[in-house]
Amino acid sequence: MNSKRTAFFVSDRTGITAEMLGHSLLTQFDKVHLKEITVPFIDTVDKAHGFVRRVNDTGATDGVRPIVISTLVNTEIAGIVATASALFLDSFEIFIAPLEKELGVKASHAIGRSHSTEDFVNYHHRIEAVNYALSHDDGVSKRNLAESDIILVGVSRCGKTPTCLYLAMQFGIRAANYPLIPEDFSTMQLPAQIKTLRNRLYGLTIKPARLQQIRNERRPGSKYATRDNCEFEIREAEALMRQEGIPYLDATSKSVEELATTILQEAKLERRIY
Amino acid sequence: MNSKRTAFFVSDRTGITAEMLGHSLLTQFDKVHLKEITVPFIDTVDKAHGFVRRVNDTGATDGVRPIVISTLVNTEIAGIVATASALFLDSFEIFIAPLEKELGVKASHAIGRSHSTEDFVNYHHRIEAVNYALSHDDGVSKRNLAESDIILVGVSRCGKTPTCLYLAMQFGIRAANYPLIPEDFSTMQLPAQIKTLRNRLYGLTIKPARLQQIRNERRPGSKYATRDNCEFEIREAEALMRQEGIPYLDATSKSVEELATTILQEAKLERRIY
Repeated sequence: MNSKRTAFFVSDRTGITAEMLGHSLLTQFDKVHLKEITVPFIDTVDKAHGFVRRVNDTGATDGVRPIVISTLVNTEIAGIVATASALFLDSFEIFIAPLEKELGVKASHAIGRSHSTEDFVNYHHRIEAVNYALSHDDGVSKRNLAESDIILVGVSRCGKTPTCLYLAMQFGIRAANYPLIPEDFSTMQLPAQIKTLRNRLYGLTIKPARLQQIRNERRPGSKYATRDNCEFEIREAEALMRQEGIPYLDATSKSVEELATTILQEAKLERRIY
Repeated sequence: MNSKRTAFFVSDRTGITAEMLGHSLLTQFDKVHLKEITVPFIDTVDKAHGFVRRVNDTGATDGVRPIVISTLVNTEIAGIVATASALFLDSFEIFIAPLEKELGVKASHAIGRSHSTEDFVNYHHRIEAVNYALSHDDGVSKRNLAESDIILVGVSRCGKTPTCLYLAMQFGIRAANYPLIPEDFSTMQLPAQIKTLRNRLYGLTIKPARLQQIRNERRPGSKYATRDNCEFEIREAEALMRQEGIPYLDATSKSVEELATTILQEAKLERRIY
């Protein structure tokens, strides 16, 4: 029976925090197979009762009580959810009491945005940064490169674009990216557009086998995707980055979050979203 | 003194979970001003000792002990961090014991990926989805629209692009977007390219005042950005969406996360990333 247990991540907002925390907790039990279900926007008493019924029905079907990991803010709603036949782990309530004691004030228990000015500013920075990343993807626009916070360089398909977008979405960083291509290797010079911006360049590299795999999915059977070509481009790009004193990271076994967080830290970028 | 207290979000990985949980906890205390600092990649004993020194130095400077919110997985590292002069809230350890009891197995306490196959699959889905969103942004490519999971429609600058990118990054959803433009309103017909895909269309709308503000930042003083034109486009777009039975959301006061999560839920999309 144990192989069919269900874990719910429940929240009165998007559920993304509950899901990230819950998922990383459960990966610590990798021998146990759990079905993970995120349930966002449980923000009324009615929805809370509906969720309790869903949890109880699931437990009856599974033959074992579910796990519920919660970031519910409202105590009345959390109180209803706590009545479900489940292991209820309330990541919010558990920390509110010690924080109230430490800070000497009561928590508001308000669902939603306490900091609406902050949210507006974050929204603005995020949209600006996403637009910036989109219009400076893959060297598309050479304009306003000087307004970037960082410019990622590296061979085609090494992971520059998603890393730029993550930097923009999560941290509000204006990240451009510029490909290093065979033409640059023949001269062993940086492209003219980014040469004068050397102190904001950051490199990504990748293992040839992985690059070959990615490129082959995109352009199967092309010269571009051959092992020889991938090895050549990576070797030359790394040599050029070393020659120019550009720090670089190997993206092969790193997630987009890890790449973005590492670059934020190493390049000492100042984030615009908190 | 209390106005200069510091909160650290510490992790052996990217710190994004710690920061999201910590930030949402602290917004419950909106009268207290805290400086929030995320400290990722504390994954060795040496780094843990360095972090303890930083916390203690900060407390001495602030004149009040910091708050440390942790998702540290490794018990040795967490044990060192716990020796700092701070309120230490360990969101990981606090739930590991009840989960071990419930699941009847011990947690691995391994930093990093327990599920490396899963991570590889997630990476693949995310990159594919991001590439899809980029190549189907703003109606750019009409090819392969039938391969989309969802197609967002709405007037220019109502928030389609960041929502598509968030759907791609967080959930692995292939989200295209297609603008509704004055030409469509004169015929009150959907663009031909998306007409046959009606059951996967989802609309965004926005309040005229907000749209005017956003468009005016982009093209100051243009007709495109006038209040009259914004009101006209929004009214016509909403009428067209109602006529065609396309569900739509008001993006004005919603964050990108809220829009993406709501669409995921309402359109019953099957996410590819967990």
